[in-house]
Amino acid sequence: MARPLESVPNFSEGRDRATIDALGEALGGQARLLDVHSDPDHNRSVFTLVGSAEELVESLVAGIACARERIDLRTHEGAHPRIGAADVVPLVPLVPEEMERAREAALALAERVGGELGLPVFLYGGLAPGRGPAFFRRGGVQELARRLEAGELVPDFGPPRLDERAGGVLVGARRPLIAFNVNLRGSPEAARGVAASVRERDGGFPGVRALGLELPGAGLVQVSMNVEDYEAVALHEIVERITREASARGAELVGSELVGLMPAGAALAAAGAMLGIEGFDASRVLELRLLED
Amino acid sequence: MARPLESVPNFSEGRDRATIDALGEALGGQARLLDVHSDPDHNRSVFTLVGSAEELVESLVAGIACARERIDLRTHEGAHPRIGAADVVPLVPLVPEEMERAREAALALAERVGGELGLPVFLYGGLAPGRGPAFFRRGGVQELARRLEAGELVPDFGPPRLDERAGGVLVGARRPLIAFNVNLRGSPEAARGVAASVRERDGGFPGVRALGLELPGAGLVQVSMNVEDYEAVALHEIVERITREASARGAELVGSELVGLMPAGAALAAAGAMLGIEGFDASRVLELRLLED
Repeated sequence: MARPLESVPNFSEGRDRATIDALGEALGGQARLLDVHSDPDHNRSVFTLVGSAEELVESLVAGIACARERIDLRTHEGAHPRIGAADVVPLVPLVPEEMERAREAALALAERVGGELGLPVFLYGGLAPGRGPAFFRRGGVQELARRLEAGELVPDFGPPRLDERAGGVLVGARRPLIAFNVNLRGSPEAARGVAASVRERDGGFPGVRALGLELPGAGLVQVSMNVEDYEAVALHEIVERITREASARGAELVGSELVGLMPAGAALAAAGAMLGIEGFDASRVLELRLLED
Repeated sequence: MARPLESVPNFSEGRDRATIDALGEALGGQARLLDVHSDPDHNRSVFTLVGSAEELVESLVAGIACARERIDLRTHEGAHPRIGAADVVPLVPLVPEEMERAREAALALAERVGGELGLPVFLYGGLAPGRGPAFFRRGGVQELARRLEAGELVPDFGPPRLDERAGGVLVGARRPLIAFNVNLRGSPEAARGVAASVRERDGGFPGVRALGLELPGAGLVQVSMNVEDYEAVALHEIVERITREASARGAELVGSELVGLMPAGAALAAAGAMLGIEGFDASRVLELRLLED
């Protein structure tokens, strides 16, 4: 079998168990479902699947159809910004050489979501250079509707307007990223200030996107991050800076959470730093060595 | 194919490149050689091999024959205690259920080393409860020779006396352990005091054996450890205590080194602690999830 691709679709439901289970069942039909991460404060669930391009496209079409059925954006509320019931659907190559396969799978998916499911699809990331999810989400779903009305934006597939209940879908191909949140006890302003201090846009670390969010359910605030290149900046360096910047704002670190799965290299860099082993990597881990043929 | 077993033989040569290469060639004949760790101060090399029981026994017999040929204990000097050219040869199951297979392979090896190679073999660990390598090494190779002369000890296989050049061989079966050294800038007394503070024998951590050694080549001292159960005590807790105990003795931590390979679980526990992710383990690492069938 060819090496599998990965997909990490994000859906705008993190509270209703029945809907989360239904999404999982739809997504796990052909592809292999490795992880589900639901957050009630974000009101969002992130699924991690692997499979062949064909398996992933079939599973994702089924999952997006399920989301269109069961999630109504008009009554949705949650800390995480979004523009769709099936909000963002990236196809991810597990090795850099397979980016082209991931792009092809993403385009095949986008075409079916626009045609068969009748939802407007916006390409992002590797398929629309310069346009990340934030480009579509700024101002929220109402603002996106306005931009479509005004002709400032046109979907790449599907109808020209957002679906009343399900909004639109962002489909892209991207390198593996790490979705990593650090929870703080402190004010929302502190979380936003700390987020600004680590994100690339405001002069922080390369490839780091970060938002400061409130988690009313947990009684905490959060620095919610995407780390696009863990070789450019190690996760523990980010955590160290967050600890320092939080402390300067009267906030303190409560704990971190990983959304989905982490590539081994990112975890081993943190382990090496913790243990003081220079250059510690996958070549020093028994199970990963046994993987090599 | 059945799941492989592991072996981690330790040979008393860490300086002469030709001998280390010859040992590697002999050991890699049938089994698969994953790692070689040579230390000139210890004057010792640790090889990590995997293979079927039969492949490992063949490779180990060849490696021990090579050591008998090329290493003369009478002129050997090094920081690490030893009683043989091929000093200690453990067979290691990669999952706990296969301990019995590892024990059988170790006994088959011991019999061939005693018979074909004519070296005295002492069983240790899982094959001789209560007798670890330290039981045989205390007082050095001269003291072991005296105990044999005096009839206090009898080899389990092979001739009743040590080989003049190659000494004896410890053969055993044991669970995976982590051989982990922390290097300090400080006095030999500090290293010995720190070692005592972490090892089980002196009230330290469960399953930790530790020695304070001098590394004249590196101009450092070392706490050289075997960690037998990384679930009972995490490596980063050991490093934390060493840092504190060293500081109390005017010494400081320079860096750590792993001898051989580390099980993924031990590395991921350190990563989780570094990043503040509670319960972080192999189930959250993409490559390790893809291993599951």
